Amino acid sequence: MTDPRYTPLALSLPSTVPFVGPETQERARGARFSARLGANENVFGPSPKAIAAMQAATADIWMYGDPENHDLRQALAAHHGVTPDNIMVGEGIDGLLGYLVRLLISPGDTVVTSLGAYPTFNYHVSGFGGTIHTVPYVDDHEDPASLFAKAAEVGAKIVYLANPDNPMGSWHRGEDIVAAMEHLPKGCLLLLDEAYVECAPKGTAAPVDADDPRVIRMRTFSKAYGMAGARVGYALAAPGLILAFNKVRNHFGMNRAAQAGALAALQDQHWLAHVLDQISIARSRITEIATANGLTALPSATNFVALDCKSDGVFAKRVLEALSRQGIFMRMPYADPQNRCIRISCGPQNDLDAFAAALPLALRSAQAPE
Amino acid sequence: MTDPRYTPLALSLPSTVPFVGPETQERARGARFSARLGANENVFGPSPKAIAAMQAATADIWMYGDPENHDLRQALAAHHGVTPDNIMVGEGIDGLLGYLVRLLISPGDTVVTSLGAYPTFNYHVSGFGGTIHTVPYVDDHEDPASLFAKAAEVGAKIVYLANPDNPMGSWHRGEDIVAAMEHLPKGCLLLLDEAYVECAPKGTAAPVDADDPRVIRMRTFSKAYGMAGARVGYALAAPGLILAFNKVRNHFGMNRAAQAGALAALQDQHWLAHVLDQISIARSRITEIATANGLTALPSATNFVALDCKSDGVFAKRVLEALSRQGIFMRMPYADPQNRCIRISCGPQNDLDAFAAALPLALRSAQAPE
Repeated sequence: MTDPRYTPLALSLPSTVPFVGPETQERARGARFSARLGANENVFGPSPKAIAAMQAATADIWMYGDPENHDLRQALAAHHGVTPDNIMVGEGIDGLLGYLVRLLISPGDTVVTSLGAYPTFNYHVSGFGGTIHTVPYVDDHEDPASLFAKAAEVGAKIVYLANPDNPMGSWHRGEDIVAAMEHLPKGCLLLLDEAYVECAPKGTAAPVDADDPRVIRMRTFSKAYGMAGARVGYALAAPGLILAFNKVRNHFGMNRAAQAGALAALQDQHWLAHVLDQISIARSRITEIATANGLTALPSATNFVALDCKSDGVFAKRVLEALSRQGIFMRMPYADPQNRCIRISCGPQNDLDAFAAALPLALRSAQAPE
Repeated sequence: MTDPRYTPLALSLPSTVPFVGPETQERARGARFSARLGANENVFGPSPKAIAAMQAATADIWMYGDPENHDLRQALAAHHGVTPDNIMVGEGIDGLLGYLVRLLISPGDTVVTSLGAYPTFNYHVSGFGGTIHTVPYVDDHEDPASLFAKAAEVGAKIVYLANPDNPMGSWHRGEDIVAAMEHLPKGCLLLLDEAYVECAPKGTAAPVDADDPRVIRMRTFSKAYGMAGARVGYALAAPGLILAFNKVRNHFGMNRAAQAGALAALQDQHWLAHVLDQISIARSRITEIATANGLTALPSATNFVALDCKSDGVFAKRVLEALSRQGIFMRMPYADPQNRCIRISCGPQNDLDAFAAALPLALRSAQAPE
């Protein structure tokens, strides 16, 4: 009896997980976290109307979801002033990234991203045999100019740019990105990940023509809309590229209740404004806590804040582990020099109180390891 | 401005949808169906405890689901008498089929399936550049002997066998499939789709050793468990193959409420027994209706029944369209000679009453088209 005959590509891939989930860490430590602030989830939660819509739709969960996501795409089109043909709904941005990479990348193809940017994009590129080229952050910002120059140099098929950025929380003005696109090499698709853009200052969303074939924008209901566990993301792009997703996507992959929840969440912009206020308050509080402990909170246009621990990755990791021991789940950037920071998601007062209480001990513990 | 540079494989693929959803048909006809009996959904629905668990978990939908599906895998392992390392949970069987095909199939690789069997498997194989070889049904049954012989002939990496079969509802005894596996060629993985096996007579599930590297079994919460819209399927296989899914899957792709719902559904075997009774009653009723109208209901081990209209695919399609005009959503096999049949999912009395009322006119209309 022999093993299945995997493809050479599959054999070359590691069986690793891009992120270890907090539940895995909780099982390892034998206790729940008291504050879950590591995955940039929105602790303030979705609109109560979205929760109600999902609960109501659960009674009909015996039915598959609409494979066309018709109602949600209509509403998103109206919301963005585009046509439904500009919109593809999928199983979170992670799912859509996988489909997009599959459409464009085969062994030998290249992409460009920033060293330390969202690893799930890299996971998909490696998974389809692509080669990843990176450029460094500039002053904790992803840098469109160097990304696009590198893309030209290596003939990249895709260049990834998150605006605002995860894990640093930094951002560019949308019109600056559009201006920089003048240097986007011909035949290179700009993958603009705007997962956090609702949290950002007005003018951060790039004013891209939805029919521009040079760019695809990714949005999600996981962050500002507070529905990470529902798995609803969407892409905005030219109709040709949107249609191409039908070649490879899991047509019946959307959870029916999640479809209803996303629609209700989109229609409750009042709740979104409320959540953005709460995020803003939390960012200020996090900044205060950081300052009181000798750390520097980086400016953030997202629902999280990177805290500069003013040392190196080894030190930041010790801080993170000491926080974990005290029940605070957080994460940190994985690449130097951003890994001098730890990253905390915005949360309500209780969660931040717990963080404030745990941080001094965590820093002392990291400064004087046993 | 140029289009993205798709892979040659992507360029070669059609932008088609394996199945047109009933919602799409409803939008086209401008009215809802009165009986939704086309997608083998379980109209009797999931356990009320599963609905309650999903509704409760919706309050926590701001959190990503556990990427390891730990609790569900533990429960499934206990249920099947295997270890959690034998189980991979994914976004329905459709999602798992995509991952499996991706792991094994690249351009030039071959698979074998039956002509007219589940098209989504074929969709994934084509999507990764594989070549599909088919063998005919034998007396409306998929035929393990000819499938395995063809697999040997063409050097297939995967042979697909659904037991019970969709769309015909026919089945083999599990021990007969295990016996036939003696002729499964070395290095060919048997993909045994048991989506409907809970509906089948005892002894239909193949008594496969979970650590046998020659076979992977697919199960789902979409059919007997009544949760099609939740998107929860799972694979049972040797730990090496299960682990390989981590190379390519969307780790955070599971809906958190769906995870909780599947766990609760599994734990309510009493409800499952109730649903299976209802399905059995519906199969009998469907058979009566068919007989009264001069059709033959094929024996079924699933939650649907294939009805032999005793003509050809053109006639069956006319029957289907006439039923649709009367508000009855059904589907039919796509390959000859199975396409002499129409396929009806089991439903409650009201739905079957509507079918019984519509069928005579539909048959008359099909016999005398304008």
